[in-house]
Amino acid sequence: MPHATEDNITDLARQRWATAAEPRLAELMTALVDHLHAFAREVRLTEAEWARAVRWLADTGRISDDKREEFILASDVLGLSMLVVQMNHRFDAGATPATVLGPFHIDGSPPAPYGWDMAAGIDGTPLFVHGTVRDLATGEPVPDAVLDVWQADGEGVYEAQLPEVEEARLRAKYRARPDGRYCLRTVVPLGYTIPMDGPVGELVSRTAISHFRPAHIHFLIEEAGYERLVTHIFEEGTRHLDEDVVFGTKEELVVPFTRHASGTAPDGTRVDGPFATAEFDFTLQPARG
Amino acid sequence: MPHATEDNITDLARQRWATAAEPRLAELMTALVDHLHAFAREVRLTEAEWARAVRWLADTGRISDDKREEFILASDVLGLSMLVVQMNHRFDAGATPATVLGPFHIDGSPPAPYGWDMAAGIDGTPLFVHGTVRDLATGEPVPDAVLDVWQADGEGVYEAQLPEVEEARLRAKYRARPDGRYCLRTVVPLGYTIPMDGPVGELVSRTAISHFRPAHIHFLIEEAGYERLVTHIFEEGTRHLDEDVVFGTKEELVVPFTRHASGTAPDGTRVDGPFATAEFDFTLQPARG
Repeated sequence: MPHATEDNITDLARQRWATAAEPRLAELMTALVDHLHAFAREVRLTEAEWARAVRWLADTGRISDDKREEFILASDVLGLSMLVVQMNHRFDAGATPATVLGPFHIDGSPPAPYGWDMAAGIDGTPLFVHGTVRDLATGEPVPDAVLDVWQADGEGVYEAQLPEVEEARLRAKYRARPDGRYCLRTVVPLGYTIPMDGPVGELVSRTAISHFRPAHIHFLIEEAGYERLVTHIFEEGTRHLDEDVVFGTKEELVVPFTRHASGTAPDGTRVDGPFATAEFDFTLQPARG
Repeated sequence: MPHATEDNITDLARQRWATAAEPRLAELMTALVDHLHAFAREVRLTEAEWARAVRWLADTGRISDDKREEFILASDVLGLSMLVVQMNHRFDAGATPATVLGPFHIDGSPPAPYGWDMAAGIDGTPLFVHGTVRDLATGEPVPDAVLDVWQADGEGVYEAQLPEVEEARLRAKYRARPDGRYCLRTVVPLGYTIPMDGPVGELVSRTAISHFRPAHIHFLIEEAGYERLVTHIFEEGTRHLDEDVVFGTKEELVVPFTRHASGTAPDGTRVDGPFATAEFDFTLQPARG
């Protein structure tokens, strides 16, 4: 192999990484070399900038742990997470669109019956989200689908960020009824800022980029025979809908939250005092095999 | 700002990062968005691959500390470090070429006189490196230049990797004489492997890439009126010259190490027992201002 020059270094690095035993790894690494070098050449990266980037990457890794995923945040604010979601979930028109999973999903949330309050003990306005899970092809209800739901509290904090919470907090797995209908009780979500005290926040703070996410609730629906759906619903009219820092907003996922002074909730329970309701049907894309 | 789709997400992310207050940061970040997204689109990155990459980055940061720079190593094995060096040090023909700094340079090495032994107490064959520091334009000697020199020991270990070494170990700043001549005493360097127990090593181990660097000694010469020179010399005939894992080898930097049974060293001292000598002139590129 010849020695490296500015002209041949990209080809040399490509040739080396093309020796990966797995063909897919070879494909990924050679493309990474190409694009990384193209970036450095295009901006004529200086040694000081290179050194600063190396330090930024190490700092981003060091601040990451099982409660904080700073590299996911970096991917989110660069639009990479949303791009990867879109490429991997090209659903037909009419299917509920996918959006980012985010770093705060916890596996194994407890099963919850129709109408269960996943926000018991949490401050906020009660919110009932209800609707039907449907099949895109037939328009018919999908019976007994499981909706894995999670959201942040009024401070923008997810359970995944809290040390040693003993019981599931603002998360649950709701099973829809045989008629496809589901109903969950929670509190109205609030918008929140991404953490601004780390390397990603420092970078964002040097731009005019809004560092907020609009209020939303996460859903994950995995049902045999359908494409996995990872999505959110957003409150219509909430702040930051058009400047979501992670690019996660979709028109089809924005839902009116209807306010009530008091009365009967969608699950038939009586609520004394203000509450809100939101109706949303999830339309699943049949599996493509 | 419209909501994100697979088609518009790159433009949306570009527009956001173009708001950086410093124009150079805007240039860097928009180019980064372009190339990162182009990479993900070209390979059609899956969500599982994305998640694995995020984990790899966090692991690489977490293993990094002031003794270990895993992201510099990543940059090295991807050929990025050598590309950045080449782009930023386009010297004229005849100048001693630059190569990678590497992660092991320590600032503030002790000043050393002509012939000083920077390897006192270290096992190995004594080696004298000597020659003249010259001006590329005039060919004349450069008087009193300071050569900052460092190398690994016989185990491939640099002082920067050792906790709590009290005195400078295998490093020193040699001042050339008024006639431009320098002479340093050390031990013959050996080739060594990059650390294979971290995320970079794990990746390299899944390819046929040699994980060795050929034997070399580092030099840094900063002299008023000249371009900063960061370079190595390599022993002619040593292993791995044509497969340097960091792409650092340059033909012009490969030097014969002449072996002697015993005798008089270039600095006039008497050596009883085997030693080696290497003669190398450093030719400095006048500053371009």
